[in-house]
Amino acid sequence: MSGNSFGKAFVVTTFGESHGAALGGVVDGCPPGLELTEADLQGDLDRRKPGQSRHTTQRRESDRVEILSGVFEGRTTGTPIGLLIRNEDQRSKDYSEIATRYRPGHADYSYDQKYGVRDYRGGGRSSARETAMRVAAGAIAKKYLAERCGILIRGHLAQLGPIRPQGFDWDLVETNPFFWPCAQTLADLETYMDALRKEGDSIGAAVTVVASGVPTGLGEPIFDRLDADIAHALMSINAVKGVEIGAGFASVEQKGTQHRDEMTPEGFLSNNAGGVLGGISSGQDILARIALKPTSSIRLPGRSIDSAGAAAEVITTGRHDPCVGIRATPIAEAMLAMVLMDHLLRHRGQNAEVSPPTGAIPATVKG
Amino acid sequence: MSGNSFGKAFVVTTFGESHGAALGGVVDGCPPGLELTEADLQGDLDRRKPGQSRHTTQRRESDRVEILSGVFEGRTTGTPIGLLIRNEDQRSKDYSEIATRYRPGHADYSYDQKYGVRDYRGGGRSSARETAMRVAAGAIAKKYLAERCGILIRGHLAQLGPIRPQGFDWDLVETNPFFWPCAQTLADLETYMDALRKEGDSIGAAVTVVASGVPTGLGEPIFDRLDADIAHALMSINAVKGVEIGAGFASVEQKGTQHRDEMTPEGFLSNNAGGVLGGISSGQDILARIALKPTSSIRLPGRSIDSAGAAAEVITTGRHDPCVGIRATPIAEAMLAMVLMDHLLRHRGQNAEVSPPTGAIPATVKG
Amino acid sequence: MSGNSFGKAFVVTTFGESHGAALGGVVDGCPPGLELTEADLQGDLDRRKPGQSRHTTQRRESDRVEILSGVFEGRTTGTPIGLLIRNEDQRSKDYSEIATRYRPGHADYSYDQKYGVRDYRGGGRSSARETAMRVAAGAIAKKYLAERCGILIRGHLAQLGPIRPQGFDWDLVETNPFFWPCAQTLADLETYMDALRKEGDSIGAAVTVVASGVPTGLGEPIFDRLDADIAHALMSINAVKGVEIGAGFASVEQKGTQHRDEMTPEGFLSNNAGGVLGGISSGQDILARIALKPTSSIRLPGRSIDSAGAAAEVITTGRHDPCVGIRATPIAEAMLAMVLMDHLLRHRGQNAEVSPPTGAIPATVKG
Amino acid sequence: MSGNSFGKAFVVTTFGESHGAALGGVVDGCPPGLELTEADLQGDLDRRKPGQSRHTTQRRESDRVEILSGVFEGRTTGTPIGLLIRNEDQRSKDYSEIATRYRPGHADYSYDQKYGVRDYRGGGRSSARETAMRVAAGAIAKKYLAERCGILIRGHLAQLGPIRPQGFDWDLVETNPFFWPCAQTLADLETYMDALRKEGDSIGAAVTVVASGVPTGLGEPIFDRLDADIAHALMSINAVKGVEIGAGFASVEQKGTQHRDEMTPEGFLSNNAGGVLGGISSGQDILARIALKPTSSIRLPGRSIDSAGAAAEVITTGRHDPCVGIRATPIAEAMLAMVLMDHLLRHRGQNAEVSPPTGAIPATVKG
Repeated sequence: MSGNSFGKAFVVTTFGESHGAALGGVVDGCPPGLELTEADLQGDLDRRKPGQSRHTTQRRESDRVEILSGVFEGRTTGTPIGLLIRNEDQRSKDYSEIATRYRPGHADYSYDQKYGVRDYRGGGRSSARETAMRVAAGAIAKKYLAERCGILIRGHLAQLGPIRPQGFDWDLVETNPFFWPCAQTLADLETYMDALRKEGDSIGAAVTVVASGVPTGLGEPIFDRLDADIAHALMSINAVKGVEIGAGFASVEQKGTQHRDEMTPEGFLSNNAGGVLGGISSGQDILARIALKPTSSIRLPGRSIDSAGAAAEVITTGRHDPCVGIRATPIAEAMLAMVLMDHLLRHRGQNAEVSPPTGAIPATVKG
Repeated sequence: MSGNSFGKAFVVTTFGESHGAALGGVVDGCPPGLELTEADLQGDLDRRKPGQSRHTTQRRESDRVEILSGVFEGRTTGTPIGLLIRNEDQRSKDYSEIATRYRPGHADYSYDQKYGVRDYRGGGRSSARETAMRVAAGAIAKKYLAERCGILIRGHLAQLGPIRPQGFDWDLVETNPFFWPCAQTLADLETYMDALRKEGDSIGAAVTVVASGVPTGLGEPIFDRLDADIAHALMSINAVKGVEIGAGFASVEQKGTQHRDEMTPEGFLSNNAGGVLGGISSGQDILARIALKPTSSIRLPGRSIDSAGAAAEVITTGRHDPCVGIRATPIAEAMLAMVLMDHLLRHRGQNAEVSPPTGAIPATVKG
Repeated sequence: MSGNSFGKAFVVTTFGESHGAALGGVVDGCPPGLELTEADLQGDLDRRKPGQSRHTTQRRESDRVEILSGVFEGRTTGTPIGLLIRNEDQRSKDYSEIATRYRPGHADYSYDQKYGVRDYRGGGRSSARETAMRVAAGAIAKKYLAERCGILIRGHLAQLGPIRPQGFDWDLVETNPFFWPCAQTLADLETYMDALRKEGDSIGAAVTVVASGVPTGLGEPIFDRLDADIAHALMSINAVKGVEIGAGFASVEQKGTQHRDEMTPEGFLSNNAGGVLGGISSGQDILARIALKPTSSIRLPGRSIDSAGAAAEVITTGRHDPCVGIRATPIAEAMLAMVLMDHLLRHRGQNAEVSPPTGAIPATVKG
Repeated sequence: MSGNSFGKAFVVTTFGESHGAALGGVVDGCPPGLELTEADLQGDLDRRKPGQSRHTTQRRESDRVEILSGVFEGRTTGTPIGLLIRNEDQRSKDYSEIATRYRPGHADYSYDQKYGVRDYRGGGRSSARETAMRVAAGAIAKKYLAERCGILIRGHLAQLGPIRPQGFDWDLVETNPFFWPCAQTLADLETYMDALRKEGDSIGAAVTVVASGVPTGLGEPIFDRLDADIAHALMSINAVKGVEIGAGFASVEQKGTQHRDEMTPEGFLSNNAGGVLGGISSGQDILARIALKPTSSIRLPGRSIDSAGAAAEVITTGRHDPCVGIRATPIAEAMLAMVLMDHLLRHRGQNAEVSPPTGAIPATVKG
């Protein structure tokens, strides 16, 4: 029932199956007056799209987006923005066997249980292909947040299987197909992925996404706390199995004196909170990290059942990412952008007249 | 802006501050005909309430709930159920210093930034006291799910600081004030907490919550995936900094052959998915684990600022839990119950006529 | 399913049955900093309450409202405001016959069809008693709109059965129990109602509600046009069978040259639009008129069926308004206030940075 | 803020401006398994489209709809259905004067006030052109309701200016371009409209829409009463100034003994309620009637202002309907279908297990 819209003030609705005619989206609630063209969206779409290195799926899609409404003479009008991306490179014959078999670890079984029917080609609506539209919609939010509010959102691959970065440099992230921030270990990733492809297996990953320059006051306690909505948004991405904010699961073993971020007039002294206090942004960087499971689309056979309930062995052919985490960074950025945009408008609507007792203190991040 | 309601079909709305007159709630969308009395809710409220052992806050509240509407001759009518819990043991003088100071790690600062004003007594709306109403509302969902659908929801403390369970027995969970499932290590918890209270510090924790007997088909892809809504619900609980489903963050280092839960006609062979596949319940146990940060309400001084922006030292007096994770189990159960109830009704609304191609396979949990 | 909340930014949720323990409400999204006490709400509640003249139901309720949360030191905090009104004068024995019979023209039959069960006492949730809570919640909106925006909302009885006003004076409206604006015909109303009570029958009515000082720009096309939300809000009031805006049904026979409100730099030359153009407020007075049916709660017998489906004759005893339109004015004002408040916050959230090309022209009402 | 979606369980979102690239829509929540092709939608689109007689606008659009997702092998999948209609016959030069002038009675002024900018060509988003997408989406609901529930929805022109039908025959409605049900007076309509076009003026109208075979129990009191949602839906149609249900405004002068619909085991004896009792469907025909104002797009000059606030005379050139009521019937049917579909799923979600005390009595309509 209507789970295909996200947000309450800045509402993003999407439609489209992996092998259907097109992916589409509607962004409702974007403030008017923002300069917007397809080129503004294409950048992030190009970061996400398949087939850009040997480490990702070889499906070739241009992911060329078309803006169908909501923009006039180069600026948003405040009316809903319709977006369209035509699918080009569907190879549906790769999926004919999946029509009656359930790939273990995939949504095939659960979709049939829920709806009684599914578009099995390429995983239908459950395919990560639909995230292209999220990235397009999120790019609108990113642009507004950056230009009007000075909020910068960026992410990077934080871990690939057992490999962690040894050093960290934001400038490296956009220079390699992994969104990896460490020069030292880049070759390790490539070696690892080449071996993995030979094996025919897949691996999990972690992605970190950061928003800086966030004003204080965003978040709607108690159920729509900012971190709760961030968790919702990030967990809604295919393959995500965990979300943490700030110190996250490390908080379990921290003492209060360790964890709490002390404040001074010059700024915070740490950021274990990850930028959210009591569900409301504190002005510090928002730090979120997600865990992505290894894809189940692998050519190594697995035990499963078919749609009659009989035992079956399943091999997934077709073109797939051996590590979905590799292309997840732009998707995580897009979702975080949607959440912040939605909360900015919600906060503005209720609290436009508020004068806090004192100014916001600067954000000082220490680890 | 309206962040105090949760759910779309089974909608829970709450109100109330820690030191205000009362906590209240409205449950809208409960099916009619369910037997319901205050006693059905009081059980879970009693599990959550403060002052039941030396290890939690010594504030004494009976948390006695009153049902004001929506029930007639002992059964729900389908109309909204109004709930009320009067506050009894507010000691507001404990908080007079906090009126103008911001406790580090607390929501004081962010609430003032957002609203320009706050009810500082006991933390106002940001206090965990409001979770009492979530537990009352969640108890209605738990009852319906158990009686009408055979869905059982239960949780336990999974880790307290560095201490993990050595064995596991569900039957132990309700016999100690920690909701701890391991006899061997129970004394360790008590020793640890006694020392902590002497120190004046606090500690983090992890809580696991499980739903069994869940039918297939719950969840509304793509944004309201079942796991996304679970993450939203659990992250909305005070002090939660991370949520994971099934294998969670361990998935990062898993291979696809390891992680995927193979299927046979006799059932699943593992449950790394944690009961959710493609955002839809698979019939397996739903397994979620949350990380709770150590409370910032400690008597050890911390650096902070006051509401004029000047440096200040802050000591939190008053009565507080040194480990909020200890009382979090019933709250996590309540939130999971709300999510499942909401999704049950949403799924039923759209897909009541669906006949899946084959019956659901049994759930077989292996680690 | 969750039909007991109204609004998206300023959300009002209510609960409570006519003969239940209490009526309650939650107002979520009210901006912080507004001065608010029970006295601010009691005024409108006193205008609505029963038993104030011989022309309305003789049920005696003080309708004394209690604010349970969301207000601190006399000002709203931005957190949800909980409201409570205890029922005092339930005479449930009056209704024992209705337990198994369906009063024709009432909701008894349709509630049993929908829910399978109903609280029959006093009509349960379907009773107009629940409008007391709408009036309390609406009073918060009215206060904010008046004090912060200079928006004045007021209504009056526009027609009672065949009787129409001959003159019009706003100042008369609050001086008689009918909210009637015409001195000449006041005695006619009293004569008519006295005769009606003797007959044991009831009569319909029309109520007009006006908002002046409304800024331009409120309304969210295309589905949440301001007039569409006003129609929703007013039609949701018990007994309402029709809603019209501006010229309303008279527009059917108007030519375009007649209907269109011409504009000059000094203001509009007419207001057939009723203050809404293209679903967005134009700055002119918002004019809405509702038709209320005659109540079915009359002591004259009617043919009906009982809950076993057999023929039955039904006489409604108990205390009822012979003309529900008499007390409807404060309810209509409250609903219009809720709509305008909701739209003010929604508009502000999206369009705070907008600079219209030219200033709003004054409103000039001519008939 | 997000006013472009309608419904809570069956959610319709639309986008698109009159002279933009395309109109689009998303239907989220349609049950799976319904046979659906473009042809099923094209029928109603063809009933609505412009240029089919000399009495409507001469803009030529094929309104050919494309289904982009949510349908597989001819049946709905339960995933969101994306719809697209490309605009073909935009004559934007007709509107160059309107870029800086406000047509009196149009939304030009209010859109500029709200958004600071507008796509003026053809009225942009405020144009009735967007109703094409509502008709396409509504056709999906109509099909489901008819095939799965036996609910029939149909409408007709009820009044054109001063002309009322003298007789009534549903079979005539689809045989003339007016949706007029009376053979006797058909020539009067044509004569009237021919004269009107010579004058250059426009006229109002009334349209009636009826749903029969509606089950009992639809509607979500108290705010989402079925009639309240119907009023919302119908008032959201361009040019609508009034909505009434059943006896509507005639109820004002009715006595209770007259208005109430008595019940017998054989059925109701009248239908002044218009099929809705206490906000819930009673099983009787749902009868709604709307008033449409005369369009302000006429070539007779009117006084207005320009976007600098200076006085201006405005003549609307271009191609326009002299009576928008003529093409409104399919739009009103579509909106009523959306409301019923949404409420069917909402009711089913909460009350699937309900067994009413007695069966629904038949509907007997008398005037």
